[in-house]
Amino acid sequence: MVRDLINTILSRRSLRRYTEEPVTEEEIKTLLEAAMAAPSASNRKPWHFIIITEREILNQLAEAHQHAKMLNEAPLCISVCGDPNVSRFWVQDCSAATENLLLAITAIGLGAVWCGVHPRPERVNEISKILGINAPIVPLNLIAIGHPAEEKEPRTQYDESRIHREKW
Amino acid sequence: MVRDLINTILSRRSLRRYTEEPVTEEEIKTLLEAAMAAPSASNRKPWHFIIITEREILNQLAEAHQHAKMLNEAPLCISVCGDPNVSRFWVQDCSAATENLLLAITAIGLGAVWCGVHPRPERVNEISKILGINAPIVPLNLIAIGHPAEEKEPRTQYDESRIHREKW
Repeated sequence: MVRDLINTILSRRSLRRYTEEPVTEEEIKTLLEAAMAAPSASNRKPWHFIIITEREILNQLAEAHQHAKMLNEAPLCISVCGDPNVSRFWVQDCSAATENLLLAITAIGLGAVWCGVHPRPERVNEISKILGINAPIVPLNLIAIGHPAEEKEPRTQYDESRIHREKW
Repeated sequence: MVRDLINTILSRRSLRRYTEEPVTEEEIKTLLEAAMAAPSASNRKPWHFIIITEREILNQLAEAHQHAKMLNEAPLCISVCGDPNVSRFWVQDCSAATENLLLAITAIGLGAVWCGVHPRPERVNEISKILGINAPIVPLNLIAIGHPAEEKEPRTQYDESRIHREKW
């Protein structure tokens, strides 16, 4: 069980090329169940998920976000959004949910890449306009998802220089 | 592989009671390898990890953080810290690393709870003082870890009301 999990974690790589094969509704449900099982401060669950599969909207998102051009190919985008009025820890909670989403994507055999939106105000404005998001809701990211058309090896990033003992 | 991962994700619960049995160095290394395999914006890896096992420091942390009293019992605390000078996405990246850490804890059979520090300034100040952390480094959280002395059932938090189609 430990090795399976570690293997999934090390196999999660940013994949930016996808085939045209759509992601099924059943797969989307599995991804969202994983995401919503994340911990959240005081269990406030300050998250929302926008599921985008319409080609026109995907292309608009690709146009608006300089590092999300792969959405021109991806059959699916999930935008994880947060509500700062529900929790001051919304970025942490929504990021934990996003990591669960990415691991479930990896376990299913799909590929994805996390494109950050918040805290860059110009990205937040552009993406909010396209997706009809209004304050207080903030789009944290765009996750491009599809069946991978590229491969990357699992990798460790273990680095002892980042580890401190008892104190900094 | 999918069901194993989803089971681990659903089994990750906040556990606040622990036995006195220490966590081994090998287990700590597995946890840190999982944490450091997280994605980060532009792969900047803006994270650091402080490993605390000294009883006196654990008790000081419990004293300083009103929701971390379980550190009086826990044999181990890992504080995930971030460097905002390395990345403006440090909270997201360090939170993804923390979720990996919590999932590895679950897979090993350990228990843990995530105690938030940043962005509450009084907590950041107190915890930084105890752990010798100086700006620009910010403690994101304290993760209390040990062999569980309580059990919780896996649970789903799947909620259709959080899902939006194509637009908000």
